[in-house]
Amino acid sequence: MENKRVTKELLEKIKGYDNRVPYEGSVPKNEIVRSKIIDSLEEAIKLSGLEDGMTISFHHHFRSGDKVLPMVMEVLDKMGFKNLRIASSSLTSAHECLVDYIKKGVVNRIETSGVRGKLAQGISEGILEYPAVIRSHGGRARAIVEGDVKIDVAFLGAPSSDCMGNSNGVVGKSICGSLGYAKVDAHYANKVIIITDTLVDYPNYPISIPQTDVDYVVVVDEIGDSSGIMSGATRMTKDPKELLIAKKALSAMLASGLFVDGFSMQTGSGGASLAVTKFIREELIKRNIKCSYGLGGITTYFVQLLEEGLIGSLFDVQSFDLGAAQSLGKNKMHQEISADFYANPFNCSPAVDKLDFVILSALEIDKDFNVNVISGSDGVIRAASGGHSDTAAAAKMSIVVAPLTRGRLSTILDRVTTIVTPGSTVDVVVTDRGITVNPRRADLKEKFEKAGLELIDMEDLLKAAKDIVGEPKPIEFKNEVVAVVEYRDGSIIDVIKKVK
Amino acid sequence: MENKRVTKELLEKIKGYDNRVPYEGSVPKNEIVRSKIIDSLEEAIKLSGLEDGMTISFHHHFRSGDKVLPMVMEVLDKMGFKNLRIASSSLTSAHECLVDYIKKGVVNRIETSGVRGKLAQGISEGILEYPAVIRSHGGRARAIVEGDVKIDVAFLGAPSSDCMGNSNGVVGKSICGSLGYAKVDAHYANKVIIITDTLVDYPNYPISIPQTDVDYVVVVDEIGDSSGIMSGATRMTKDPKELLIAKKALSAMLASGLFVDGFSMQTGSGGASLAVTKFIREELIKRNIKCSYGLGGITTYFVQLLEEGLIGSLFDVQSFDLGAAQSLGKNKMHQEISADFYANPFNCSPAVDKLDFVILSALEIDKDFNVNVISGSDGVIRAASGGHSDTAAAAKMSIVVAPLTRGRLSTILDRVTTIVTPGSTVDVVVTDRGITVNPRRADLKEKFEKAGLELIDMEDLLKAAKDIVGEPKPIEFKNEVVAVVEYRDGSIIDVIKKVK
Repeated sequence: MENKRVTKELLEKIKGYDNRVPYEGSVPKNEIVRSKIIDSLEEAIKLSGLEDGMTISFHHHFRSGDKVLPMVMEVLDKMGFKNLRIASSSLTSAHECLVDYIKKGVVNRIETSGVRGKLAQGISEGILEYPAVIRSHGGRARAIVEGDVKIDVAFLGAPSSDCMGNSNGVVGKSICGSLGYAKVDAHYANKVIIITDTLVDYPNYPISIPQTDVDYVVVVDEIGDSSGIMSGATRMTKDPKELLIAKKALSAMLASGLFVDGFSMQTGSGGASLAVTKFIREELIKRNIKCSYGLGGITTYFVQLLEEGLIGSLFDVQSFDLGAAQSLGKNKMHQEISADFYANPFNCSPAVDKLDFVILSALEIDKDFNVNVISGSDGVIRAASGGHSDTAAAAKMSIVVAPLTRGRLSTILDRVTTIVTPGSTVDVVVTDRGITVNPRRADLKEKFEKAGLELIDMEDLLKAAKDIVGEPKPIEFKNEVVAVVEYRDGSIIDVIKKVK
Repeated sequence: MENKRVTKELLEKIKGYDNRVPYEGSVPKNEIVRSKIIDSLEEAIKLSGLEDGMTISFHHHFRSGDKVLPMVMEVLDKMGFKNLRIASSSLTSAHECLVDYIKKGVVNRIETSGVRGKLAQGISEGILEYPAVIRSHGGRARAIVEGDVKIDVAFLGAPSSDCMGNSNGVVGKSICGSLGYAKVDAHYANKVIIITDTLVDYPNYPISIPQTDVDYVVVVDEIGDSSGIMSGATRMTKDPKELLIAKKALSAMLASGLFVDGFSMQTGSGGASLAVTKFIREELIKRNIKCSYGLGGITTYFVQLLEEGLIGSLFDVQSFDLGAAQSLGKNKMHQEISADFYANPFNCSPAVDKLDFVILSALEIDKDFNVNVISGSDGVIRAASGGHSDTAAAAKMSIVVAPLTRGRLSTILDRVTTIVTPGSTVDVVVTDRGITVNPRRADLKEKFEKAGLELIDMEDLLKAAKDIVGEPKPIEFKNEVVAVVEYRDGSIIDVIKKVK
């Protein structure tokens, strides 16, 4: 029945078609995959072709409520896998089980934005065979797109999926909102396994991860603990010091000349940062202007601005609380974006490139404006790179807000323990002592002075800190490197050494 | 100010990091691209690095109203480019200017889904240096994704764009609806130039083509002639023969066992095919069931089904009329999909794989059920491959509807002039003479017989045609191949030869 009209001989005579193949037949209709549901995780892993030493990935959209990574790791351990590399968008307190899997040899490499608790402690103590790799969200997207990180199998928890793998984070038993990090893994991983606890009729809506990227779907009882995924709305600070810092940060924004109709911003979920959002809202109303878009990890406060018409669009790579996750499912101008769209420095242009303002927090800031958001003053890894360096690098005005001191520790130092964000990209530091402008930004300094803002030079700020807490004792490290910190472009900006 | 903590020597000592580079600095903030608007097309072309012999691409979402391709070609000609390869999603009557550019040597290769009029005639007469390449929509997406077609510069008309290139087809002076074909070009082309006549504030909404894929934006007076883009709603046929065929096709669908709540379908915009949609609507209401999704080129009739709640989702790779284009901008369950999502056979699974029914038209069908939708009975190229072979290959039941004869020409032949869709993927042929089942589908034949449907064997159908129009005179071709017809998997299913 199949009429074969084209032969190899015929093709050899056609200009430009000499190395093509003749039609040999179509895939039989009964071999077309019309459901990707696999009975068990173990079966899906077998089908994926996973082997020892390969790279597997996860996302952290469920944050501390994630049950997917522990579930998958348990199966992989039982199946006897060894020397796996974990490339997770980040790791949280839900992932401490990895300590044991590292010790057992199931895992020997970790690549992540952040890491906390026992696992972070373990890595700082040198339990990994290879140093951990810390990447920013944009840097991770870049690494995956460019092929620096080749994901063999992505295990992606999805609050809902249909039988073909069309998935989202806004429908299901446990919603997590945006699947922005997972979208990149889904598109570039060699094999993709969607793990869901809510199977819906085909076709699922909306489609965050498309069926075109999905190999297998596994239905389980529970992918996340709702209370851990989203602990309600992020709370507004009442700390007077944080409110003071926020007020000062706002005054810098107002004096910058950038706070005009249509400006854009990213503000984090930290205390002072969130308070800035609140003050911005008041200014928008007072001035009768509108913010064009809000970016990044999205909180309920940003949703409020959207619903009040004070902000035009929200670009959501990660929903920071339940209100944000719910809004993503119902507000059309609240749009899910991938980590690539968010901050990959090597695509044609990520969303961070159009930022006017970003408000960022810090564990440590040094006299050269370098910022540390990954390691504690004891030298131990404890937090996350996140979008810190991505947004600082691109925003017209990056503002780092932090208290001058925290207890007996100074935030302002001669030298930060670890550089995550280079000082050349940090424009303004705001502490409870005032506004400190990076000398590279003489333009901003001039504007702030003209506006009558009280400024404090970095030298004086550092002195003020030392006056309170004294000269900090240098941390003692061993020589062994336990983690490398990649800058967003893939270069290595710092290393973290083993603690003594 | 830049603290360089990492040296090449340090990295050489770190396991797995010996070939990485130390951080050297961040891109200065004043070098970040915050607008991609280029003053003229010529300037954008210069910036794109286009060279003689390269491949440029266009989409055909404006159909016969397209002004982008002629505008770009005029500039390229003036700039002196030679031997360009045109890789367009399709070519219409708006693109006859290409005949002159081929004759002048500006263009020497054409790859497209379809081609009509003077250009088609010219290609059939052998004006191209290399044979033209005919691909299905899914096959083109596959070829681009797999790298068979490497697009150097994509010139993508967009009804609206912002300064960063975020574009869509539902806002603007001349809307075209879905940008489904263009999305693939945008993502995979080396350089992407968005050409728009409606520049909107950043960020544009919705985002069909994202800024991450766009290099330059050029604003022009007019990208399309609205009346040509969309000639109102597609009209419902009153031709009794077409209505008869549609009725018979419906009866086959009803008898197939697949016409149950949640089934899916694609129906074309041809007369009989559109009439089937109308009859399906009546059946859905009568049976109180719902279609889960409609796929493909979307017409106002599908939109009506959506708005009446008779269909759950529309997946729109190409809006066939103004009503469809408008609906895409307002109905959330009317979703834009890329040609990759639509039909690329080599991704994890395109939407066609979940089709229950597809209703397709034909220029010619032969006794082996092969279908020709590209060349006329005179052997001259005249139409388009479209999604014909993609949907036929995947749908559980592919139905080809056509009149037995058209004037003095038979639709049913011993041998089609050109094979676009192989007979092994065509399940049912419906003509005004009745329903003809492919012998491969004994299962369907049994069901149809049980339902009391009048069937006619292919042999009898062919005889009936010959009884009316006699034995057709064989077409005389020269030996020279003027076009190759690629099957969706990249193999060559047929060639078209030069007409005498």
